[in-house]
Amino acid sequence: MLKLFQYNWQVRDDWFKWCEDIPEEELLKERVGGVGSILYTLFHIIDVEYSWILELKGELPPEEPPFDSYASLSKVKEFSRQCRREVEPFVTAWNNEMEYQILSETDSAGNVVLFKHGEVMRHVIAHEIHHVGQLSVWSRVLGKKPVTANLIRRGLFDK
Amino acid sequence: MLKLFQYNWQVRDDWFKWCEDIPEEELLKERVGGVGSILYTLFHIIDVEYSWILELKGELPPEEPPFDSYASLSKVKEFSRQCRREVEPFVTAWNNEMEYQILSETDSAGNVVLFKHGEVMRHVIAHEIHHVGQLSVWSRVLGKKPVTANLIRRGLFDK
Repeated sequence: MLKLFQYNWQVRDDWFKWCEDIPEEELLKERVGGVGSILYTLFHIIDVEYSWILELKGELPPEEPPFDSYASLSKVKEFSRQCRREVEPFVTAWNNEMEYQILSETDSAGNVVLFKHGEVMRHVIAHEIHHVGQLSVWSRVLGKKPVTANLIRRGLFDK
Repeated sequence: MLKLFQYNWQVRDDWFKWCEDIPEEELLKERVGGVGSILYTLFHIIDVEYSWILELKGELPPEEPPFDSYASLSKVKEFSRQCRREVEPFVTAWNNEMEYQILSETDSAGNVVLFKHGEVMRHVIAHEIHHVGQLSVWSRVLGKKPVTANLIRRGLFDK
């Protein structure tokens, strides 16, 4: 499980670097698909990962902070650093016995919904990769080469 | 590992259903980003999964077949069915002891490249999710609601 989180964190950091060459107005521009802008996508990825992992840790996640307070590259990068500090120890300590532990939630209609911890972990992984696929299209729309999505050749399996 | 492959196969089949409401010329139209058209993206996802898994099985994957021979929804669906028949038993039999087994390849420059089996498995998973993220943007460009990328609520962890 850890390897796929590490992959996402590497790719996310690569996108932060990619963003450095793009004017901020392009990063904030509303686009077709996904959750809207490039920077809001990165912010959303971080927030979703953070909120789910807090729930798995048994903590109450805060409401999604207003994006307005994070609408610059440096602030989104700092948000990522802060959240990762809380997320990484949980992911590193993950083991197979946690797969079928139950997370109980109440949805907006007041119904109790049950998830397995392993299900939520994979949901978070797929969530980020999916949104990054959207970034790659917008990158080409901007005439820029996107960050590679390859998982091989990132040194993730070097010992 | 199996769960993420099962997720990808469910999502892929959902996209096949989504395609049924789209005129074939839109499915084949060249788009900005990714590998081009919607149908070629689905074909490419299947081919990449199939080729890597054959390699992990110690078999020589065939060259990518020419897309021209598969350029219709029904043919791509049939290609997916055929390949899954060979891929699924390998993925189902996957276990942790296979993570660091080595796959040795010769690249186009004649250099030997080594990959770990676990690295290739995760590469294949991320590859499909990434390309599906691209489909979701093109779906909105077409004015259509994309297939949900959610991994939760798909019954993947029901026993």
